[in-house]
Amino acid sequence: MSKGLLIVLSGPSGVGKGTVCKELRQRMPELVYSVSATTRQPRAGEEHGVNYFFKTHEEFQAMIDNDQLLEHARYVDNYYGTPRDFVEQTIGSGKDIILEIEVQGALKVKEKFPEGVFVFLLPPSMEELKDRIVGRGTENQATIDHRLSVAVDEMGLLEYYDYAVVNDQIDLACKRIESIIVAEHCRVHK
Amino acid sequence: MSKGLLIVLSGPSGVGKGTVCKELRQRMPELVYSVSATTRQPRAGEEHGVNYFFKTHEEFQAMIDNDQLLEHARYVDNYYGTPRDFVEQTIGSGKDIILEIEVQGALKVKEKFPEGVFVFLLPPSMEELKDRIVGRGTENQATIDHRLSVAVDEMGLLEYYDYAVVNDQIDLACKRIESIIVAEHCRVHK
Repeated sequence: MSKGLLIVLSGPSGVGKGTVCKELRQRMPELVYSVSATTRQPRAGEEHGVNYFFKTHEEFQAMIDNDQLLEHARYVDNYYGTPRDFVEQTIGSGKDIILEIEVQGALKVKEKFPEGVFVFLLPPSMEELKDRIVGRGTENQATIDHRLSVAVDEMGLLEYYDYAVVNDQIDLACKRIESIIVAEHCRVHK
Repeated sequence: MSKGLLIVLSGPSGVGKGTVCKELRQRMPELVYSVSATTRQPRAGEEHGVNYFFKTHEEFQAMIDNDQLLEHARYVDNYYGTPRDFVEQTIGSGKDIILEIEVQGALKVKEKFPEGVFVFLLPPSMEELKDRIVGRGTENQATIDHRLSVAVDEMGLLEYYDYAVVNDQIDLACKRIESIIVAEHCRVHK
């Protein structure tokens, strides 16, 4: 049996990673989704091993120390990370796994897991990305400006990825990602 | 406008390159097929520039001398080759072009055109390939043995290709090749 693939789906904030991932999940039920580890408390209805692997701060720190995370980051007072074991067990069983993650996190994963397939989701244009960031409507001008500036920087990291997929229409973007997965399974490994 | 791709479809004799190419032609009418140059006489109904570019021996030799062929070979008393111009004009106009060719010829193309996408069509198994070679039914045992031995050698050249596509079912093989073409258009060029 051949190993599965780790597909890393990334792209600037506002490009629609979450929506594309949700649609892919419907179209490719055989695709496994990477479950993050976190130190935050479970919310009502959240299950360990399904929504997150819930960890104490000590457990999380031990995962970092033992190189058991492909990447990790801190948001507010909590840590989030991608457990290496879950990824390796999934691909070891011949299944593909997808990880949806922001641009900097994806590059950290690439350092530890260069054999992953790194897909960068592109906005149809920078104007369109700006509209999507502004369109969320909840932020003030300074926040919007900052998020746009970050998105521009993130676009500059495209060159570190294997594939660029334009998210012009969700259906087309999903078809391109499905094609990339099929093609990668046909790749001759040198 | 971005450039088209040169897709080189190859594989051992008997694997079904011609059948897969014919089916792809129906499924992807936008895909251009590489037209060979030849010194042989046109047969009834054959058109210059459609079936072949018909050349005199002198013209063909000049194409070789001026590096205007991506590969060429001699069969019996005639020469056949792949004109570089036709490939470059097609991809320059943004269209993809496919070249169906035996394994040695494909590797010569790779030397002159490494940016091509090299796809190796695989039999489901060596037994199946043997059955297909024997199944043609017109050759004697020595010829069959020789063709099988050549096919085994050709299989060893898989490592020089980018993709391996199993021709288990024509429909599946075509879908895989279509996916490879879509994926290659999404590739980030380093």
